Parts: sequence; structure tokens; C-alpha cells
Amino acid sequence: MASSTTFSTWTFNLNILAPKLSKNNGGEFICRYPNGCFKQTLHSMTTSSSADIFGSNEKPVDWSRGNLSVKNGVQCRALEVGTKPSFSVGNKFQFDDVIEAQQFDRDTLSAIFDVALEMEKIEKNSRGSQILKGYLMATLFYEPSTRTRLSFESAMKRLGGEVLTTENAREFSSAAKGETLEDTIRTVEGYCDIIVMRHFENGAARRAAMTANIPVINAGDGPGQHPTQALLDVYTIQREIGKLDGIKVGLVGDLANGRTVRSLAYLLAKYENVKIYFVSPEVVKMKVDIKDYLTSRGIEWEESSDLMEVASKCDVVYQTRIQRERFGERIDLYEEARGKYIVNQDVLNVMQKHAIVMHPLPRLDEITVDVDVDPRAAYFRQAKNGLYIRMALLKLLLLGW
Amino acid sequence: MASSTTFSTWTFNLNILAPKLSKNNGGEFICRYPNGCFKQTLHSMTTSSSADIFGSNEKPVDWSRGNLSVKNGVQCRALEVGTKPSFSVGNKFQFDDVIEAQQFDRDTLSAIFDVALEMEKIEKNSRGSQILKGYLMATLFYEPSTRTRLSFESAMKRLGGEVLTTENAREFSSAAKGETLEDTIRTVEGYCDIIVMRHFENGAARRAAMTANIPVINAGDGPGQHPTQALLDVYTIQREIGKLDGIKVGLVGDLANGRTVRSLAYLLAKYENVKIYFVSPEVVKMKVDIKDYLTSRGIEWEESSDLMEVASKCDVVYQTRIQRERFGERIDLYEEARGKYIVNQDVLNVMQKHAIVMHPLPRLDEITVDVDVDPRAAYFRQAKNGLYIRMALLKLLLLGW
Amino acid sequence: MASSTTFSTWTFNLNILAPKLSKNNGGEFICRYPNGCFKQTLHSMTTSSSADIFGSNEKPVDWSRGNLSVKNGVQCRALEVGTKPSFSVGNKFQFDDVIEAQQFDRDTLSAIFDVALEMEKIEKNSRGSQILKGYLMATLFYEPSTRTRLSFESAMKRLGGEVLTTENAREFSSAAKGETLEDTIRTVEGYCDIIVMRHFENGAARRAAMTANIPVINAGDGPGQHPTQALLDVYTIQREIGKLDGIKVGLVGDLANGRTVRSLAYLLAKYENVKIYFVSPEVVKMKVDIKDYLTSRGIEWEESSDLMEVASKCDVVYQTRIQRERFGERIDLYEEARGKYIVNQDVLNVMQKHAIVMHPLPRLDEITVDVDVDPRAAYFRQAKNGLYIRMALLKLLLLGW
Repeated sequence: MASSTTFSTWTFNLNILAPKLSKNNGGEFICRYPNGCFKQTLHSMTTSSSADIFGSNEKPVDWSRGNLSVKNGVQCRALEVGTKPSFSVGNKFQFDDVIEAQQFDRDTLSAIFDVALEMEKIEKNSRGSQILKGYLMATLFYEPSTRTRLSFESAMKRLGGEVLTTENAREFSSAAKGETLEDTIRTVEGYCDIIVMRHFENGAARRAAMTANIPVINAGDGPGQHPTQALLDVYTIQREIGKLDGIKVGLVGDLANGRTVRSLAYLLAKYENVKIYFVSPEVVKMKVDIKDYLTSRGIEWEESSDLMEVASKCDVVYQTRIQRERFGERIDLYEEARGKYIVNQDVLNVMQKHAIVMHPLPRLDEITVDVDVDPRAAYFRQAKNGLYIRMALLKLLLLGW
Repeated sequence: MASSTTFSTWTFNLNILAPKLSKNNGGEFICRYPNGCFKQTLHSMTTSSSADIFGSNEKPVDWSRGNLSVKNGVQCRALEVGTKPSFSVGNKFQFDDVIEAQQFDRDTLSAIFDVALEMEKIEKNSRGSQILKGYLMATLFYEPSTRTRLSFESAMKRLGGEVLTTENAREFSSAAKGETLEDTIRTVEGYCDIIVMRHFENGAARRAAMTANIPVINAGDGPGQHPTQALLDVYTIQREIGKLDGIKVGLVGDLANGRTVRSLAYLLAKYENVKIYFVSPEVVKMKVDIKDYLTSRGIEWEESSDLMEVASKCDVVYQTRIQRERFGERIDLYEEARGKYIVNQDVLNVMQKHAIVMHPLPRLDEITVDVDVDPRAAYFRQAKNGLYIRMALLKLLLLGW
Repeated sequence: MASSTTFSTWTFNLNILAPKLSKNNGGEFICRYPNGCFKQTLHSMTTSSSADIFGSNEKPVDWSRGNLSVKNGVQCRALEVGTKPSFSVGNKFQFDDVIEAQQFDRDTLSAIFDVALEMEKIEKNSRGSQILKGYLMATLFYEPSTRTRLSFESAMKRLGGEVLTTENAREFSSAAKGETLEDTIRTVEGYCDIIVMRHFENGAARRAAMTANIPVINAGDGPGQHPTQALLDVYTIQREIGKLDGIKVGLVGDLANGRTVRSLAYLLAKYENVKIYFVSPEVVKMKVDIKDYLTSRGIEWEESSDLMEVASKCDVVYQTRIQRERFGERIDLYEEARGKYIVNQDVLNVMQKHAIVMHPLPRLDEITVDVDVDPRAAYFRQAKNGLYIRMALLKLLLLGW
């Protein structure tokens, strides 16, 4: 989002929106002019610079640069953010958009997780369930992803907001007539308060965010980023294991192509004393860029072909699906890779009592169905956590901390 | 639905949800634990056992068996239900899901119809129109059926609830990647409070219900069941004729393939002194299983080739569409069957003043358009009754009697 | 819409719906019977008769004829309308449906624009944002048009109303089984309070309106009408230039096939001292019917091949897209036509300071992207005005003036 003009038309009614108002933290500075609310993208000081490891077409963005939006010749710097968020309308969220997992540092992740936890506790028809009343979210999906779309739409509605849906923007919209993404965004932003976009092209979310005067959330852009998935994965570990520092995580399956495990490895590098095990068939091994990145951050990692041994040591066994389409004609290689590492009762038997099995879903047979009843099978809870993370981000982008 | 964990997060606010609270009936026993609400499927004693006449792939379910759900080692029996429902949040509905028309006995049908009648009277912006505020329904449609979907979504919204929609789950969702229906249900139930599912496979609704911890309503599963259609048909007869005992019904058209007329014949057998006439072209006659079932229940029936004579005797002339796709290459047979029994002015002329014409819609030319203006043309009122039946079921499954 | 029976079920709660009630104007006569509300289409006296210039298949309708609806043998005349609308539930809107731009005379347009302006001022969570609470709009789209659909749905939700969506009614609905449009309308009207329909056939909207007992808005019917687009265009000129009498408008691009520019030219003829310039490649010149019509109304017009000169004189440069599909095999003619008249910095340089550039969108390269930042680029504001016009029409059709 670049700068907002909607606020003059649809003003906040704080008495309705805010269950309680937090006090200003020292250093807060919210800049609002009668004509609109000007924003900028500021990254807090602890942010690690993001290397270009998430896609070769994607230019790394210096999130700390400020990325100032200017409108009508006026500009302003956004605030420093209080360290402890509370469930309220108060301090501005330090980001205008959610484009990639890397934009969040450790402290911000922790603060977002606190908000997600508050979201879990919101009761039906309580005041908290109406904080986004009057807000409209457009789900602009250029490729269908029913799971992700329903999760975002549920999140918005659980907070009292409303939704405009298009599941097939690529085929249906003016895109088919040759309209640019930028023009589409400029039109759609006139109809809503926030855009959740799924696109087939790497970098599309950032282009949309650069154009829009309202917040944009990336719900996956091609082989690029899917930041809410990355956040819900880390949140699930925090929620299930109770910590992120010092955890041991086994990443299993297709580590070469899996956007999920690559993002997770990247985010885990923000924490201390983390140990990562890579368990994958030879043809889909974790690529060297992530390994180098982990090493550069002082994160211990090793490759293993012994799932049982890794499972016995880990706090988290993160299983992924071997995707047939990655193997082209080589069905034989696919079949070999696919059957190699299965999470089943035998794996459960060696896992520690407190450990969990995660999976981004959908799963085929890489986790056997009999695992589901074990309390350590966390993958459906993980999917549900996506709801809370998305509720938190919608709240933060529209109302602030 | 198996057992629910959503209640702990999204608790009832009874002051908002319930216009009035009914008193406990003797024998009520609602079992709620802090960790969730455990449920079971209990069938009342008058239930007739359902023979396997609705599809050869479908195993009959003993609804009276109890079908206990167990979670965390705790289980409980659901209550006996008061005989007279009132518009309130009170006694638990005796079913967790709506899967097939056979699950309802005569008394339960009557009680549901009472609730449907109350639904007709709900006024815009009255308290009644907000009883499902805060609830989310997902319409998970594996094959499109715009009419049924819109009817359910309208029902939910008329009661203040919200909707998540997917009209093309088969193509769009993870099903295309090989995810099982069970896994999809486990994910989607995390986003909503009730699932309305349409599927192309017989028995899919029951599989979904066995998996889900929230209620599931079958909106049609392939050649199997479409229970809300069956209920709205019986409700329409009750509403239009004023009784079900002692009625005479002429079923006309494609009786061999029509799911609708087969279900209707089955349900009518629950009432007394019913007489059924079958009027159909030779190639699409009513099958012997239904005839045998009616005979076994002491229901009088006869076949006739004289629509005029039948129409003059009946309270209800239930016309159906001859479906071309049933005839394969034999277009000649289709054309012959199609033109044979048309409801037109001549038929109206012999019908009694109080009688009605019904049709499940869509209609082609088996009812001529000039019939529409006659007050006895009940088919559009019948479609609208679907709204009230669905409102009633949503209310009952989510709030109880 | 023919006559309404929904009012008996979903009665107005005026205390909730109406922020303030306007006094009755002299001559008001609202006819409500317990069984329903009977309506008619009355056109005010200043209406110009609409020549058949919008499509050869379309019969002109004499909107002043009254078009009385009769139900149960009772009929009634609708009221004269007060000249000054206010934001309230009061006098009945003089139309039951919005089918074509021609149905509105100059005074009515002006009054609608006043309501649209009030819509711009509605704040989030204010009382105004809830005036359509409890109302359901169905978007029945037989061909996809994401932009138009989202605009209508946003309009409904900005006023507190709810939406039932179907984007692919042609493929998904019973239409595929041979159901007539009339039958579909009769079913869908049972589920909602107003229908917004997009169809691929000229005249479909009028057929729907003739059938429906609830209001119908035409969101485009094939090569026929798209009245809300025409209204938002005129509204944008009024809003941006401050007047409609005496304006100079240059229509540029594909004038032969563009439904938009043809409607706009027609509507502009309702105003005084208007001057229209046609600037188009030879192959897509404005057709003679519109030119004759303008002449007959005393509107000055001329054709020009000099965009720069026209741009320097006009208040509005209305650019349109040259549509490739109109040229069939003659790609050479398309390419020639396409590049001929581009709105770029050079054109901006000769335009007056107060003048604006409009475009119905989507645009390809007929307006260069560098024009977007100029304050005179009004096309995205124009798109947003569609929201306000649609909010106004929904309000007027459902609540009256």
C-alpha cells in the first residue's frame, strides 16, 4: 500500500471498533492529515537483511530503507512500535503490507504471535468478534487455492468484516483483456479496505503493494512467497512446543521444491541454538543457498538418510509431499522418492512424548492415516493456526497493534 | 459430526442468540465439558428402520444404535427431546448431521415443519433474524448446483449467519492433488461452524459426517440422497393441503431415475391412509423396490396411464422432468416419453379446487407455462419452502430446538 | 419487478432502517395491502421518448405508459416524486427496476446524483452504513464480469446488505438443463430482495424484470444496455467538472462498437449547449443513428481527426479501447486503428487545467501510464464513482428516496 485516501470517507468510529484503547507508548507518532493517512514501510532495527534466496527473479528489498509514500506533497515517518502489543486499536502496525516472511524480525514475529493467541480466545458475539465490522476484504485470486482463500475469508468474518471474492481472476477479470495488474489493483482498491492476493507470478504481490493505497497481503505468488503459511508454521511450533530457541526440527520430504520448508528454515534462523535435520531423497535435497544461509547465521544443520534416528531426536518432524509434477517423465524417480520416508506408527514410536508431526497439507500417503489419532499429529491444528495468524494480520494491518 | 471442540473458543452468548429460553424438559441432559461438547446420534424410538432402497452402494445405517462420539476418553449420551419445539435455544436437536431423509421419523418431521413455519414469520431486522449471528457455514460443493447453494446461503444469511463459498471444490481444491475427502473436511471444519456439502459420490456426505466435529448437511451426494429436497416436498404438501394423513398423490414422469419422487414415496409411507398413483412412460416406470416397500408398509398404490383420471382424484400432482441423458442413444424413446404426460390447462380443468401441482424444478415443457398463473401451481412456492426448511435445519443443528 | 409479496414476510423496521423519515410530499400515495405491495413503473412527465438506437433487437419501451402491475385483481398508481431527495426512507422510487439508461430523465438523474453524493459521505459503522441491513442481493451473472460484480457487491455491503453470488450462471445453473430465464428468476427471487443480473443476450434484463416480483438491476445484457456504467459516466462529469449543461466532450477511439460512448452521447443529449467531438479511426466511426439523434435534439457535434485540437477545447476527453475482436482477420486494420489516437503527455499538455481524461476501463495502451499521475486523469475516480452510483440505486430501489 502506498498511501491511503479511504480514511476520509470511512472514518474510524473508535468507540465501536476498539474494545479498549492502549496507551501511547513512548516514541509513538501517528501522522494523520484530514485528507488521508500517509504511510511508509519501516523495518525495525533488529531486522536481518533478506538475501535473495527465495527466488532468482526477486530483488531483495531493503525493508529498513523506509520506502516512503508521498501524496499531495506531504510525507511522514511512521512510528516506533511498542514492544508489547495488546488487543486494541492503538499503535500503528509497522508494515503496510505483508509480502514476504523475511520482512518480520524475531520481535515482530513474537508480537504477532501474541495477537494470534488473543485471536484464539475471541468468543462468538463478543466485542472482539466485531472489531473489523464495516471493513471489506477482497480476495483477488489469480489462481484457485480454496484452502487458503477460505482461511482468509473465515479470518475476516470471525472479526466481523466482510468479503468480496474472486477465485478465478486470471480467467474472468479484465486481465484476460490485457489489463495490467497495476490497473486492476487501482480499480479493486476502490471497492475494499484490504486486498488478499494470490498470483501465479513471482513478485506480483510486491507490485500490487507498490500500487495500492490500501494494505495488500500476499497469499502466495507463484514460486515466490507465501508468508502467512511461513508464519503459521513458526506459530505452530511456538504454540505446540512452547519455545523456538533451542528446538530441533527435522524437515522431511521434498526439500528442493517445497516453498514451505525453505521459508521455515529461513525463519528458524532467527532463533538461537536451533538444530535442523534435512531428510530427503537424493533427487529433492535441500538446495545449497539455504544451507549456506543457515551456516552464515550460525545455525547447526545436518543431512541424514535415517528418518527414525532424526525422529527420535527432534521436537518437530515436518513432513512434506513429494510433488509428482516436479519429476516430469521420470515417474520411476518419483515413485522411489515418494515411498522413501513415510511418517507412520514406527516413526511415532521413536518420537518423544512432547514432539509433534507437522505437514503443510494436502497430504497423500507420506503420513499414514493411523497417525492422525495420535495427539502428536499436529497438522490439522497447524491448519487451524493459519486462521489465527490471518486474523492477527488483518487486525494489525487495519487497526494497528 | 463426531465431536466438537469449537464451543470452547466460540462460546454461546445466550442473551444475544436466544430470543427466549425454553424450559428444560424432563429427561434433558446436555453434556458440556470445558474442553468441548461431545455428541452422539440418537434416533427416537418411533423411527422405522431404513431399508437399502436408496442406492445399492449405500449401507443402511441403524440410526437408533447411538453412534457415540468419544473424545479424550470422555463420552456422553444425548438427551431425550421434548415433543414440542419452540423458537428458542434449548433442547439439543437429536441429530448431529442431516445425511438422509430416512433419519427422520414422523414426529421429528412434524416438529421440523413447525420450526420451518416459524422461519417463514421471521421479519427483517427482528431478533429472530439474528439468531445465527457469529456462525459461519461453509458450502463445500464438489459439483455446482447454483439453486441449492443459493437456497442454503440465503437461509444462513436470513438468520444472521455468514457463509464461506466454494462452488467448484472438485476442480479447485486439494482434491485435485489427491487429498482425501476426510482430510479436506478436517481442514475446512477449522474455518467454520457447519458444512453444507454437495458431492458427486453416493455416501460422501456420510463419510464427511463421520469425520467432522461440526454438523454436516448433505446437499445431494450423487445418485444417493438429497434430504432437504425430500423434506421441502413433504413440507409443501403439509403447508398447501394442510395434512399428510389421507392424502392422494400422483407421481408423474420419470419415476425410475428421479431421486426426488423415490424419496417422496418413501417419506409418504410414514403417514396413514395415503394413496399413491404412478403415472409414467413405460421405459421410466417406478422400480419394484419402492413398490414393495410401500406394500410392506400398507400403503395403497397403483399404476395408471391416464393422467386425466389421476389428476381428477389427487390432492397433489407431482410432475417431474424426463432427463434426456438417461436414454443414451435412444433419442426416439426420449422424445416419446417426454411428450406423453404434460400438465396443462386440460389437466388443471379436471383437478380439484384445493389440489396442487408440484415440480422439483427445473422444468422444461412438462408443465406448460400457462399453468403458472393458476393458484394451484405450487412449484415456485415449493422452491421457496426449501428456504424455510433449510433455515429450520441450520437453526436446529446449531442451536437446538 | 412486477409485484412484491416479500413485504409481508420481511417487513420494514423503520426505526432501524431509516435514519430519518422525510415528510410526505403532496401527492404521495403509497399503496400497501396486507398481502403485498403493488407497484408500477411510472415515468415523470419530462421523459424523452427513447428511440430504438441502442440495439436493433430491442423494442423501445414507452416508460410513460405506466406499465401497471396487477396482482390478485388489485392495482394502484404510484406516487409523484418529490423534487428533492433526502437520505431517508420515504417516497417510493419511481422505478421498480433499472434496465436501461434511457429510463431516466434529466431531473431524475440529478436526484440520483444527489443520493450518490450522500453515499460518498457515509462513514464506516455510521447509521448510514447499515440502511440495507437485512436485505439480500443476488448477483446473477450469466457471463463473468469481475469488475462490475465486485462493484455491486461492495455497494451492497457498504450499506449493510448481504450478497448471494453466482458468477457463472450460464454454465452452472439450471440454464444448462434448459430452464428458461423466467423460471430461474422466479426461483432466485424467492431467496433474495433484489437481483443484479448480467446476461449475454440483449433484452434479457427486461425479461427478468417483467417476471420478477422484486427489483432487477441490469448489469449489462450483451450488446444491449449497461445503465449503471452510463450513469457513473455522467455522474463523473458532473462531479469533476461541476456541470453538465454547456460542456464540451471529446469521444475518442472505437465509437462504432463502444456501448459506453453511445450511451453517453445519448444521455448528454438531455443537457443544454452540449458540444460533442467524435475522434476515431475511419473503420470505427460513430454510427449515423446517434448522430441523427443528437441533431434531432439540437445537440452540436462534429467529427475530427485532430485529437490535439479537440483535446485543447474539451472539458472531457473520453478515451476508449479499440477492441481487437471487432476486426476479425484484419489485424492490419486493428493495428492501424489502435495506435492512431493515444492520450499521452502531449495531449495532457494542450488540455485545459480543469479538463479531465475519462476511460471506462480496462485500458491497454490507449492512455500511456505516465498520464496516471496527472490530477486530470479521472478514470480510477470514475471507476470508484460506480460504487456510489450503485449504492444510490440499491438504496432507491429497496428503500425509496
